[in-house]
Amino acid sequence: MTQTLLAQPLTAAAFTPFGDVLDANGAPDKLINADLCGRYHDRATLDFADGRAGISIFDAVPRSLPYAFDLVERHPEGSQAFVPMHQNPWLVIVAPDAGGRPGDPLAFLVGPGQAINFHKGTWHGVLTPLHAPGLFAVIDRIGAGTNLQEVRYPAPWRVIA
Amino acid sequence: MTQTLLAQPLTAAAFTPFGDVLDANGAPDKLINADLCGRYHDRATLDFADGRAGISIFDAVPRSLPYAFDLVERHPEGSQAFVPMHQNPWLVIVAPDAGGRPGDPLAFLVGPGQAINFHKGTWHGVLTPLHAPGLFAVIDRIGAGTNLQEVRYPAPWRVIA
Repeated sequence: MTQTLLAQPLTAAAFTPFGDVLDANGAPDKLINADLCGRYHDRATLDFADGRAGISIFDAVPRSLPYAFDLVERHPEGSQAFVPMHQNPWLVIVAPDAGGRPGDPLAFLVGPGQAINFHKGTWHGVLTPLHAPGLFAVIDRIGAGTNLQEVRYPAPWRVIA
Repeated sequence: MTQTLLAQPLTAAAFTPFGDVLDANGAPDKLINADLCGRYHDRATLDFADGRAGISIFDAVPRSLPYAFDLVERHPEGSQAFVPMHQNPWLVIVAPDAGGRPGDPLAFLVGPGQAINFHKGTWHGVLTPLHAPGLFAVIDRIGAGTNLQEVRYPAPWRVIA
C-alpha cells in the first residue's frame, strides 16, 4: 500500500542526521576581495574511504509532484554533494539506516541558494529536480569499485508538498 | 592608461590553458538512475599540493559592465572551481603567467549551465557575478597557509561585452 510523505522545507537542523546544508545563511566566516565577497568556509563533510574528490555534472530529467518512488541508494565509500546550477526548488529524499536497510524515508524541498552534502553511507533517493534544467554539480568519490547499494521498499512512497 | 578588454563567450577550447569548463555539453559519460540522469564524469582537474578538497559557499556583490579592475590573484597550492548556484551570466578573468607575473588578461562571459575550474596557480580575477544573487559553490584547497598571491597591473583594465 502506498504511503504518503509530506516534503518539508530543508533546514540544517532537520538535515543534520543525513548530511550538510550548504548555503549563505548567517554571517560569513570571512570577507574576501576587499569585503565584496563572503566566504562560508568548508561547509561540507567530504569523507572518502579511498579514492579522491571529483566534480561531475549531472543532468537529470525533471520530475513532478506528487512523486512516487520505491528505490533508495547509498554510497558506502563516500559522501556526495549536490549543488544546483539554478535557483529552482528540488527534492531530496533520505532515510535513516535500520540495521543495514533503509528505514522510513523523509522528503525535503530544497530552496534557492541551498546545496546539500550526504554523509558517507546515507540512504537517499536519486537526484530529483522538479524543473528544467535538472543541472547539478556533484562532488563525490572518484575511485574503483561500484560504491553503490540500491534497495527497494516493499511498497512505493508518494511525496507531496 | 586604461586598456579595454572584450569579454568572449566561454568555450572549453579557449579556456584550456587556464582550466576546465564544467557543463553538460555532448553525450554524458554514463546514464544512471534508470537512464533519467546523465553523468558527465570527473570533469575538473582537482590538484592540491597539500591539504584536501573542500566545498565553500561564496556570496559576492554583483558587478556591472563595463567592469574595471587592476587586481589578479593566484593560488599556488591548489585548483579552484566556481560553480554558479544560478543561471545568470558572470565574468571570468584570467591571465597567462609571464615569468611569475600575470601577462595581459583575457575575459570570458560564462553562460547558464557552465562552471569553471582554475588550474593550480592560474592567474585570475576575483569572483565576478553580474547579477544577484552572486552565489557560488567553490571547491578549493582547505589547508594551512595563505595560498594567495595578489598582483596589481600598472594600469586598470576595462571589460566590455
